[in-house]
Amino acid sequence: MLLDNIRTVNDIKNIDEKDYPALAEEIREFLIEKISVTGGHLGSNLGAVELTMALHLSLKLPEDKIIWDVGHQSYTHKLLTGRRDGFETLRKYGGMSGFPKRKESNCDSFDTGHSSTSISAGLGLVKARDINGEKHTVVSVIGDGSLTGGMAYEALNNAARQETNFMIILNDNNMSISENVGGVSRYLNNVRTAGSYLDLRDGVYNTLKDMPKYGDQMVKFIRRAKNSFKQLVIPGMFFEDMGITYLGPVDGHNIGQMVRVFQEAKKIKKSVLIHVITEKGKGYEPAERHPARFHGAEPFDVETGLPLRSRTKANYTDIFSTVMTKLGQRDEKVVAITAAMPDGTGLKRFKNMYPDRFFDVGIAEEHAVTFAAGLAAGGLKPIVAIYSSFLQRAYDQVLHDVCIQNLPVVFAIDRAGLVGSDGETHQGIFDLSYLSSIPNMHIMAPKNKWELSDMMKFAVGFEAPIALRYPRGEAYDGLKEYRAPIIYGKGEYLYEEEDICLLAVGSMVKVAEQVRTELKEKGYSCSLVNARFVKPIDEELIEEAAAEHKLFVTMEENVASGGFGEKVREFMDRKEIGKMLLTVTIPDEYVEHGNVDLLRQEIGIDADSVVKRIITEYAVLK
Amino acid sequence: MLLDNIRTVNDIKNIDEKDYPALAEEIREFLIEKISVTGGHLGSNLGAVELTMALHLSLKLPEDKIIWDVGHQSYTHKLLTGRRDGFETLRKYGGMSGFPKRKESNCDSFDTGHSSTSISAGLGLVKARDINGEKHTVVSVIGDGSLTGGMAYEALNNAARQETNFMIILNDNNMSISENVGGVSRYLNNVRTAGSYLDLRDGVYNTLKDMPKYGDQMVKFIRRAKNSFKQLVIPGMFFEDMGITYLGPVDGHNIGQMVRVFQEAKKIKKSVLIHVITEKGKGYEPAERHPARFHGAEPFDVETGLPLRSRTKANYTDIFSTVMTKLGQRDEKVVAITAAMPDGTGLKRFKNMYPDRFFDVGIAEEHAVTFAAGLAAGGLKPIVAIYSSFLQRAYDQVLHDVCIQNLPVVFAIDRAGLVGSDGETHQGIFDLSYLSSIPNMHIMAPKNKWELSDMMKFAVGFEAPIALRYPRGEAYDGLKEYRAPIIYGKGEYLYEEEDICLLAVGSMVKVAEQVRTELKEKGYSCSLVNARFVKPIDEELIEEAAAEHKLFVTMEENVASGGFGEKVREFMDRKEIGKMLLTVTIPDEYVEHGNVDLLRQEIGIDADSVVKRIITEYAVLK
Repeated sequence: MLLDNIRTVNDIKNIDEKDYPALAEEIREFLIEKISVTGGHLGSNLGAVELTMALHLSLKLPEDKIIWDVGHQSYTHKLLTGRRDGFETLRKYGGMSGFPKRKESNCDSFDTGHSSTSISAGLGLVKARDINGEKHTVVSVIGDGSLTGGMAYEALNNAARQETNFMIILNDNNMSISENVGGVSRYLNNVRTAGSYLDLRDGVYNTLKDMPKYGDQMVKFIRRAKNSFKQLVIPGMFFEDMGITYLGPVDGHNIGQMVRVFQEAKKIKKSVLIHVITEKGKGYEPAERHPARFHGAEPFDVETGLPLRSRTKANYTDIFSTVMTKLGQRDEKVVAITAAMPDGTGLKRFKNMYPDRFFDVGIAEEHAVTFAAGLAAGGLKPIVAIYSSFLQRAYDQVLHDVCIQNLPVVFAIDRAGLVGSDGETHQGIFDLSYLSSIPNMHIMAPKNKWELSDMMKFAVGFEAPIALRYPRGEAYDGLKEYRAPIIYGKGEYLYEEEDICLLAVGSMVKVAEQVRTELKEKGYSCSLVNARFVKPIDEELIEEAAAEHKLFVTMEENVASGGFGEKVREFMDRKEIGKMLLTVTIPDEYVEHGNVDLLRQEIGIDADSVVKRIITEYAVLK
Repeated sequence: MLLDNIRTVNDIKNIDEKDYPALAEEIREFLIEKISVTGGHLGSNLGAVELTMALHLSLKLPEDKIIWDVGHQSYTHKLLTGRRDGFETLRKYGGMSGFPKRKESNCDSFDTGHSSTSISAGLGLVKARDINGEKHTVVSVIGDGSLTGGMAYEALNNAARQETNFMIILNDNNMSISENVGGVSRYLNNVRTAGSYLDLRDGVYNTLKDMPKYGDQMVKFIRRAKNSFKQLVIPGMFFEDMGITYLGPVDGHNIGQMVRVFQEAKKIKKSVLIHVITEKGKGYEPAERHPARFHGAEPFDVETGLPLRSRTKANYTDIFSTVMTKLGQRDEKVVAITAAMPDGTGLKRFKNMYPDRFFDVGIAEEHAVTFAAGLAAGGLKPIVAIYSSFLQRAYDQVLHDVCIQNLPVVFAIDRAGLVGSDGETHQGIFDLSYLSSIPNMHIMAPKNKWELSDMMKFAVGFEAPIALRYPRGEAYDGLKEYRAPIIYGKGEYLYEEEDICLLAVGSMVKVAEQVRTELKEKGYSCSLVNARFVKPIDEELIEEAAAEHKLFVTMEENVASGGFGEKVREFMDRKEIGKMLLTVTIPDEYVEHGNVDLLRQEIGIDADSVVKRIITEYAVLK
């Protein structure tokens, strides 16, 4: 196998040019085989095989720097930099990350995870290179989906005027996770399909072929070529207008073509955008046909492309999806917003039923939130469905555009708490903190699937900003019998005893149930309260509970600072309740990738760890 | 006076067309006279006088909606909507806001303050209008400076494909607060100066003049006109490429021209961008010559343009400015980043001395932070100088791009705490909270001007992310004798007694001194600790202090949730210190505009209020 000759970085340069297609095929087979077992991002990686090979052939790593936007397309890069064995433990606890990590390899020059950061980071590395008097090449690889994020444009705007080399590769597969949206997408589509496409491309290559030294000449040729086009769509005008040299479009599955263009692009003393056309999921038919499903794939059968584990229980996302269709039917003012995730957030059904009240704004969380504020100011009931770690990007928009005006926007926050295999960048463990700091904001978290539904209905009727957060994965279907109406600011007793009082938020109610069971088995008396509201907390309940209990324990999947536990502590202190309080929270550190149950054990928020801590505390009390 | 005939909204429509220039002049005189007394934004308002008049002539308020991006150019709008008397109390406590406020007038359709939100909000109002079956016009007015913010581009991208009217007015004065930067600025500059400018403009107006019904025809004409241009710069291609109809450039001081174009633009069933060229500070020579100084002006002498109150003491910004030049001289790795505020942040001197190590990235806080992360990953020492309320926009970039990789970026956070007359949108009262939630982040606050300098030097030598926050205005020059070296995580005793222990953060040290003086006069024994570090807190100091004191009082200009007081409370609880703790914080509500001293009294964080609270608490203790 050709792959066996690739043991470390730059080994690819020893492969014969004629063997490139065979190597690409081996890489695809390898990725499909491995990801079918571990799960992971498939489509984006299959699309970037030749692009990555061409980059490794054109660059000298680790001196040269590649920044992978989002980073979920970096698997071939990992394979070509000596991390083949890592695929056995891909996205597992203690194993290889699914994203670039500087601590994993010196060939990973910048950590990524969220979208649209690569041009900013790359420009920083470019300026540092120049100030340090170094000579290496810096390349940012960004998808057309990531180009809908405003940060990418801020960085392009900033990269535009410089007189030093910076390579920006636009990996254009005409997709975000699902279909790409908006004006830029339309523009790129025009570039791809316009008559000018082939002409210009052929022109470039014919010129390149015949020229001994390309650099400046190529740029001049392209400018000349542009002048001769009279139609409106001229490739790259969008970028050239800003002052960025545009090269392309280039076939992103033709390694020879790419290597030639990359070699020339390196010589241009400006920011150069190379427009590379790729196909997401390339070479694996199920992934080509179902790009959204194979974006982030669970383990699957290679033959059929079907998931190995069929889901028997609904996810929280499924529940949200169903309740949204009901809310949409019941109230014509209900509108839904997603930032490029109609599938991931569960809004696809709402989209299909109420297309005029559904808005996919692209990977643009800031705009999504202020747009929702505008919808609310116009008298509608907007629901922003978003992942916890992505709402971090719109902290100021929530604070400045929604909450100052006290506009009734509902934030349906999915993937809140530990998310597992995506790791540090995607853990939803900060939302209770950053939302709590904002005046006029209200925060809820459901204990199980029925409560998610009830809280959504409550939120849509609420006349101020309100967020509800729920975790990734299977919706808890226990505690069905506890379905008292949602009342503003009120928690609910699930078990009322004495001595120990567990106050649990959302996903931690299930863990708290286990804690309580174990404590009961050991002879303790233990109440369990489902907090329901994190802001405001149920002060009345806590004050009343004070008389019956000796030890209070808050449980939340969120960092301590600004979280639920601190609010309870502040209240108990202010009221001089004088009871012991134990706060179970995520520690003040980033949590890596891995199975959620393992992660909980590791950071001490699983049932056993909590039971131990409670028993220790309680012993002190007595 | 013509102005006397304008008592309420739409009164301008009764003014004779021939009197428009005279009215514009009266408005300018009025604004100059009023702002010279109260202070306020001058340049942006003088530039937008005719534009605002043309909008009011073309629209029917309050049915039609205008969203003013940033909002500091809305004074003429306020004047034309019956708020002339408000200028007596402009930006004063209880008086008229310097920004649009929905609660101030039904002609203000969306509150603004931060940059680049208007297209998102406007698009929300457009979609709400259509879903509600309403017919009014929605207009977003955005400056070319605001167009460097990525959010504006996210919104443009989203507005591009729609088939309903949305008017976006690009108020192009070729300026942010100071000089505008980047590729888009270059592009717009080309549009303004290209030969095509006059031709196309004349062409449009000649065509308009001769056509009975314009709408579609005008668009067709423009498209035809564009096709005939062979040069690279074609007005508006940048926008047309996305699918947004472009009209212009239009002279932003010619009311008749603007009214004609606005009337036609209203008929186009698409997003329409009208490119209006204005001059910042127009009609007042000092403001034309010194746009940065007259952006946000202190009271000034109308004749000379000079400030009425000459500053005798240095601001914190001045101190920062000086120390940056020293740091730049001492270490060639030191680089500085601002998001469009070289003057406001005090980086201008650094820029002049070390232009190659200074980066103004435009109004682009997200990019600024990730760009800094890239610079740090490249081995440099980046210092991001930014206002507290603007760093809110880069919460995720701090968390995701700087802190996960533990990169040594210094955040020099100006305008932290209450800022005064800019009000709700600009108060820097959340940074301790949002930064505290982030792992690997470190936070300091200096008590006086010398400590700002010492902390900057400490921060530049620190090998991890670190922030220091300091307030707007005069730097405290008391406590000069307390200048012990900055030691990681350590606070300092300023007065060591017993009973009461004040733990104050940054700007509150000065207030705490007054508190202590008053308490002493009343016979109390009182220590004062300058916290210096907010994250981590000085646990050792607190633990040792526990033996000597009965009541602890934390003081910070930040909201409670996630702030300094909560950290102290958590620690004291965890260590079972068992002493009473009083936390003085900003309450969980937005704080309006007004004099900072008045605001402090209003929210109970001034010395007298704190003394009263302490005496009450202490009485309970005894």
